[in-house]
Amino acid sequence: MSEQTIPYKIYLSEQEIPTAWYNVRADMKTKPAPLLNPGTCQPLTAEEMSGIFCEELVKQELDNDTAFIPIPQEIQDFYKMYRPAPLVRAYCLEKALDTPAKIYYKFEGNNTSGSHKLNSAIAQAYYAKKQGLKGVTTETGAGQWGTALSMACAYLGLDCKVYMVKVSYEQKPFRREVMRTYGASVVPSPSMETNVGRKILAEHPGTTGSLGCAISEAVEVAVSNPGYRYVLGSVLNQVLLHQSVIGLEAKAALDKYGVKPDIIIGCAGGGSNLGGLISPFMGEKLRGEADYRFIAVEPASCPSFTRGKFAYDFCDTGMICPLAKMYTLGSSFIPSPNHAGGLRFHGMSTVLSQLYHDGYMEAVAVEQTSVFKAAEQFARVEGILPAPESSHAIRVAIDEALKCKETGEEKTILFGLTGTGYFDLVAYQQYNDGTMTDYIPTDEDLAAGFAALPQVPGQE
Amino acid sequence: MSEQTIPYKIYLSEQEIPTAWYNVRADMKTKPAPLLNPGTCQPLTAEEMSGIFCEELVKQELDNDTAFIPIPQEIQDFYKMYRPAPLVRAYCLEKALDTPAKIYYKFEGNNTSGSHKLNSAIAQAYYAKKQGLKGVTTETGAGQWGTALSMACAYLGLDCKVYMVKVSYEQKPFRREVMRTYGASVVPSPSMETNVGRKILAEHPGTTGSLGCAISEAVEVAVSNPGYRYVLGSVLNQVLLHQSVIGLEAKAALDKYGVKPDIIIGCAGGGSNLGGLISPFMGEKLRGEADYRFIAVEPASCPSFTRGKFAYDFCDTGMICPLAKMYTLGSSFIPSPNHAGGLRFHGMSTVLSQLYHDGYMEAVAVEQTSVFKAAEQFARVEGILPAPESSHAIRVAIDEALKCKETGEEKTILFGLTGTGYFDLVAYQQYNDGTMTDYIPTDEDLAAGFAALPQVPGQE
Repeated sequence: MSEQTIPYKIYLSEQEIPTAWYNVRADMKTKPAPLLNPGTCQPLTAEEMSGIFCEELVKQELDNDTAFIPIPQEIQDFYKMYRPAPLVRAYCLEKALDTPAKIYYKFEGNNTSGSHKLNSAIAQAYYAKKQGLKGVTTETGAGQWGTALSMACAYLGLDCKVYMVKVSYEQKPFRREVMRTYGASVVPSPSMETNVGRKILAEHPGTTGSLGCAISEAVEVAVSNPGYRYVLGSVLNQVLLHQSVIGLEAKAALDKYGVKPDIIIGCAGGGSNLGGLISPFMGEKLRGEADYRFIAVEPASCPSFTRGKFAYDFCDTGMICPLAKMYTLGSSFIPSPNHAGGLRFHGMSTVLSQLYHDGYMEAVAVEQTSVFKAAEQFARVEGILPAPESSHAIRVAIDEALKCKETGEEKTILFGLTGTGYFDLVAYQQYNDGTMTDYIPTDEDLAAGFAALPQVPGQE
Repeated sequence: MSEQTIPYKIYLSEQEIPTAWYNVRADMKTKPAPLLNPGTCQPLTAEEMSGIFCEELVKQELDNDTAFIPIPQEIQDFYKMYRPAPLVRAYCLEKALDTPAKIYYKFEGNNTSGSHKLNSAIAQAYYAKKQGLKGVTTETGAGQWGTALSMACAYLGLDCKVYMVKVSYEQKPFRREVMRTYGASVVPSPSMETNVGRKILAEHPGTTGSLGCAISEAVEVAVSNPGYRYVLGSVLNQVLLHQSVIGLEAKAALDKYGVKPDIIIGCAGGGSNLGGLISPFMGEKLRGEADYRFIAVEPASCPSFTRGKFAYDFCDTGMICPLAKMYTLGSSFIPSPNHAGGLRFHGMSTVLSQLYHDGYMEAVAVEQTSVFKAAEQFARVEGILPAPESSHAIRVAIDEALKCKETGEEKTILFGLTGTGYFDLVAYQQYNDGTMTDYIPTDEDLAAGFAALPQVPGQE
């Protein structure tokens, strides 16, 4: 099909929104390692997990075999409120870069959570409601996940309690008000409300918090209050499963025009966006049906893939959560206050970690100021003010497009534009004022985190 | 066509984006009164206007006869970046209200300006660029217009100077950073940078400003700097013309499903959104081809239609702009700080004023707290946090739907959801905290404004 026929935005019809999630684990030869009980170092059973998570979500978490899991009708209906998300051909960016590369992005920011997080929030809230629970607890970094969960809970009439990483809480006061408008209660983390919060504050007075801390607090509150469960916006297998709608829609849109991407790029914090975007493409690669380059982009300030260890570790700073085998900087690693709050997690999805370990995926770390430079350039020609997290993917997409300009190659690049930066204006202000700095942990910083990794029999 | 076939969101294809604007003046039997030179009280000539406005825009301003004006290809291409905007069937809101009414809204908030303002910003910036100008000046209230113009200017490489109503500047510090990211300079108004700003500050120390003040400042700077012209985000005929894309798209989307609205509702500040939304429907009514109820919704704090006078008045507080015949509270009226900054204008589009005067349209004024109650209700079920301005339309759409519930009538309601409230969280916080109050001017407040109306020979 000739290039002229490709519109600026490819929208699927409502009927084309996926009706089943794709579970990439089904096609992985080496499955992701199971979560372990931190006390026994034995694989966590469904029974053990169901104290923390909803029952249906436990099933999804443990299911490494079912390739397609149907999306319940109620969730499909909610998806229709803000999906399908557009796949955009970045004609204006291509022109500005003067590159022969063809650039596409899947834009997930056109909803009030401002990101892709709503895809999993509604699923997790739905299963909690179906199980008859009163409410859910969670953590949030940049605030998108907390907002998404607040929206889903408001829609379903569930109670919602959000522990927000303190640095984000302070940098983004208005996020709190959005969540409150949706009826959620929001607490800066670490807080004095929980045992683990008090312990962290005693050990690290003045800490600006981390996703790891906030997770510990939210889990403690969930397990100690009847009728509540904990839900998580990234990292978990179930979340990547729900986020596969991103990749399924993107692939369906590209298929309509016979377009096959050469490079697929996503930012990686816990891995939900990247995992969701690449899932169906990775499935093809795992089954030997097609080949793609996948690039995970992480902040140089929190470089789990590029400088972390592939080892069993706690998912939280308080060391009360299960152990996951993943690329990690150590659960005691508290990243410096990079503005991309959603990428400040010490670990990484076990699925993506295994795929990276097995050589199916590349990773690159980029510095904050270069990320905002890409964000500004993108905003001015594509008309969308991107989230700092998403801008990590923009940075590398632009870099790859500029390489094509050097070589003359007409590569097709697809990246995930996970969200908008409307609540990140403190960061943009620093960039505009020229006062933004870069943060790169020293080897000594990392060594301290690695030294605190838990001892798991049979592991290095 | 059966109701089941109507999706949640109706998207036109890129090919269906309008290629011509519709000029409702062509179908008006009584044309809007011409702008007058405030010195001579004679109709403003094209030559006089071209000192303030771009030449092509002057033509559009004065053209009361051409029904369809082609949209230049460059503007069409820019429209493709963020249009077509979806027409949404508010299934979830209908269910929450338990109403037999069918509710649709045209959502214009899915771009970084957060509103419909971009539709005219790109048109005005394009003609400025085409004329070889260096840059443009403007005012902004809520900030959407200033952001939109900044985006358009960044795209075209034009200089952009924005005078922002001081109360909005203070309530929305982050708007400034968005505009700066797009390369604009932003000044709180009234400022000490202009003669008119200094005069207003001397007479009203501590004023929080108004759109009228900011217009005066922006016009002064444009006319005293070679290579600059002034552009305005509302009120003018040209702006309503550009905004007709809203109504044209909405009508095309409804026509696809054979749906004819009974009631069409929009918020009204200067009239750009309302005028754009209703244009093609009003055309049918003016030509006797169809009938619709049109409802303009304004804040009780700034009730131009419902409590104003239909008279010639200055468009600006500094009394340096042309005189327009419109519903006005008097150019000296400075509205109390209602949070809907975009609705704080003392006057109203001359087109809409004439249509209202001739009985083609109704108007209603609503109070701030009831508006935010509607906004909260809408956000929780429809998943979009609305702008306070847009929420005025939501308030009345809900009220009309509830009337249908009483009577059992299955009316079809269409309203304009002009934008998102991501920069209005100070207002939402006040609403969440229960500290929001209502502001209604007394008759004495209004009398003072009316007393200062200019004397125009032949007018009451």
